[in-house]
Amino acid sequence: MSERLVVIGGDAAGMSAASQARRLRGPGELEITAFERGRFSSYSACGIPYWVGGDVAGRDELIARSPEEHRARGIDLLTRTEVTEIDLAGQRVRARDLALGTESWTGFDKLVIATGARPRRPDVPGIGAAGVHGVQTLEDGEALLDSLAGAPGRRAVVVGAGYIGVEMAEALLNRGYEVTVLNRGGQPMATLDPDMGRLVHAAMDGLGIRTVGASPVTEVLTRADGRVRAVATKDAEYPADVVVLGTGVVPETSLARAAGLPLGAHGGLLTDPSMRVRGQRNVWAGGDCVEVLDLVSGRERHVPLGTHANKQGQVIGSNVGGDYATFPGVVGTAVSKVCDLEIARTGLREKDAREAGLQYVAVTVESTSRAGYYPGAAAMTVKMLAERRTGRLLGVQIVGREGAAKRVDVAAVALTARMTVEGMTGLDLGYAPPFSPVWDPVLIAARKAVAAVRAAG
Amino acid sequence: MSERLVVIGGDAAGMSAASQARRLRGPGELEITAFERGRFSSYSACGIPYWVGGDVAGRDELIARSPEEHRARGIDLLTRTEVTEIDLAGQRVRARDLALGTESWTGFDKLVIATGARPRRPDVPGIGAAGVHGVQTLEDGEALLDSLAGAPGRRAVVVGAGYIGVEMAEALLNRGYEVTVLNRGGQPMATLDPDMGRLVHAAMDGLGIRTVGASPVTEVLTRADGRVRAVATKDAEYPADVVVLGTGVVPETSLARAAGLPLGAHGGLLTDPSMRVRGQRNVWAGGDCVEVLDLVSGRERHVPLGTHANKQGQVIGSNVGGDYATFPGVVGTAVSKVCDLEIARTGLREKDAREAGLQYVAVTVESTSRAGYYPGAAAMTVKMLAERRTGRLLGVQIVGREGAAKRVDVAAVALTARMTVEGMTGLDLGYAPPFSPVWDPVLIAARKAVAAVRAAG
Repeated sequence: MSERLVVIGGDAAGMSAASQARRLRGPGELEITAFERGRFSSYSACGIPYWVGGDVAGRDELIARSPEEHRARGIDLLTRTEVTEIDLAGQRVRARDLALGTESWTGFDKLVIATGARPRRPDVPGIGAAGVHGVQTLEDGEALLDSLAGAPGRRAVVVGAGYIGVEMAEALLNRGYEVTVLNRGGQPMATLDPDMGRLVHAAMDGLGIRTVGASPVTEVLTRADGRVRAVATKDAEYPADVVVLGTGVVPETSLARAAGLPLGAHGGLLTDPSMRVRGQRNVWAGGDCVEVLDLVSGRERHVPLGTHANKQGQVIGSNVGGDYATFPGVVGTAVSKVCDLEIARTGLREKDAREAGLQYVAVTVESTSRAGYYPGAAAMTVKMLAERRTGRLLGVQIVGREGAAKRVDVAAVALTARMTVEGMTGLDLGYAPPFSPVWDPVLIAARKAVAAVRAAG
Repeated sequence: MSERLVVIGGDAAGMSAASQARRLRGPGELEITAFERGRFSSYSACGIPYWVGGDVAGRDELIARSPEEHRARGIDLLTRTEVTEIDLAGQRVRARDLALGTESWTGFDKLVIATGARPRRPDVPGIGAAGVHGVQTLEDGEALLDSLAGAPGRRAVVVGAGYIGVEMAEALLNRGYEVTVLNRGGQPMATLDPDMGRLVHAAMDGLGIRTVGASPVTEVLTRADGRVRAVATKDAEYPADVVVLGTGVVPETSLARAAGLPLGAHGGLLTDPSMRVRGQRNVWAGGDCVEVLDLVSGRERHVPLGTHANKQGQVIGSNVGGDYATFPGVVGTAVSKVCDLEIARTGLREKDAREAGLQYVAVTVESTSRAGYYPGAAAMTVKMLAERRTGRLLGVQIVGREGAAKRVDVAAVALTARMTVEGMTGLDLGYAPPFSPVWDPVLIAARKAVAAVRAAG
């Protein structure tokens, strides 16, 4: 007696779930139908800035597994097909074939919602003008590359200075554009504390990327032919031949909301650790459309990252397939770069700690990526937060050059294990002159944090 | 009422201890006398291969703090002065001024033994010939560089294929030598399992370093002028214009042994976690002359590494100075490289696990340092050992190119926290295409290890 699994969304979470379920249960036991409104499946959205910037040669390199490959593995993946309604009571979804315009219902025994996120686009006049681009999907990347080819000049404005913003600033710089980044906060990279964001700001200045602390965009101004010519705020106009929106994303949960499924404070679906939607028996959700437990603060967060989507998809597929797996939550690790500047964070910022009601000490140290005397040793700044009294590690932020970003992983594991900064000072981290000073920068920060915890009493 | 601290040995452990004690207690409270038989203090012995190879410009770059700098900080450091006896009952040490040949006694209230390690030199005819060099001290490095300058040809033989052996092979290759490494084991890097050592072997072959599985050296053959001309084993002769000994080190504990202090199975001093010598009230020891607790196997090991020496010195100085600190032990992390090949290990090898009575599964995975599509993505092999039944992580070995070595730190923290491989699969490690595939290689290995633990039952 065969069951049917329906998957909504053909990217990381959805197709990881489908693939893992297929590994565990053959087509005779489980039929799998997946709906994807775009043309592509299982691609690396995180790679789009590098494709646009020219580091990655072509679109297809970003595709881990094409629709044809999924179909060859026994997954009935329908592209250009958008689910328009979830009928929980009837155990069916309604889907529209975007080419034909026809709609039909498909029944399910088990449902996976992996609808991803959508860009938070400023709702201002002209936002839909030619030359204004999001960078969420491969289609977005194609449109942006076409737009760059046809741009009348070389002035680019990036709205937003988060991960996508700074990565797109690099990409456009690599394409020979004069880049202005409009930033709503005091410093770029609001996922860092402002003092660490300032280091990113200075480095971007040094690269020739102009970062402007700007008020919100009020209008996109266009030329006679309808293409963007400038971005306006209440204070200024920024001339632009192309505009990239890096204004963040929100969970795409309109279908889930309409179906009455539980959403959290950030608009994402709420699940249990097996990634089953709370209160549901046969509905799972994963990827950018869900909220995740932050293991450090104990609160739910929205963390749209491909690595979580893949893990969650794997967990869902295991559970759907009759095995057992859980997604434990996140500690908030993220790494990025702008040209050769590496940026990393994990755990709580000062602001997060305050909001979570945690008293903390914060320390910052300067060190190097290699022994000071070894060629290529590059400066690195490490900021560390520890809880007052207990000394529990709360968060780490790192800004530096080669070797800075992935050092944050040590802190990510330490956060997961709820280590104290005192316990971290004894960590047996790899040491050799080409790879680290004799005291690794993370250990130097831990030592300083220990002293700060003691001093704070 | 002032106390006197005597420190035997002026390198990492001894001078870290002295410096930390001085930070906590001023000269009016604590007099500090340190004895060093060489001319230098506080230098990076680990940096010697890079100085010899030409990556580091000069000797002085390897010196973190000179004798003069220590003296300026209120530490009476006597160089070229060798302690020849410890009189525990009399609380005094006898020291010989190597220049003058005079001896005198110095009393102590507290004693720190940081006598380091000495090379395990093959006891064969000719081993003392000109052109045969250890690389333990800065003096050794100077002698080797002089020897290279005067070498009659360009053939180098390195005896031993551990860390020093492979690093010196790189250094001599960089100096234009034709390098032969004589290896007693089946593969180089016996600190890895043989299957991982084989990858190092292949890479060394590719670099033009000849690695020979050789029987023990039986004789060093010399020319008429007394300089080395070849290294002989029972099977073969290896022509050599210069020979470097990378045959490992043993704890230098002859003074401690003579004083009746407790030594372990590896010949190192035994201490408690505060680094106080067992059974002693006012004697501490740290650095290459002590044994340390291996947190994974629960056994004592000898791990001569600058990073441990520095940490232990810091701990000793804190305790001597009236504060409190402990050295928790090690998990056995070590990183190295040969040209662009990075080599890392932590925890137990298969052999170690067997000797420790632990049943285990071992898995090996191939992955890349970055997203496969990102420029510079380099192959990486990760081997992981987990305990049967419990799934506790036991060890990780990594061989690869850029970005391979320091990835072992994740496993080092996980070992310290006694994580299971199942727990590791959920780790929130940094992901972005320039830094990692969407599943970090360590996570891929953990997933495979989970499956192996289940399969082993």
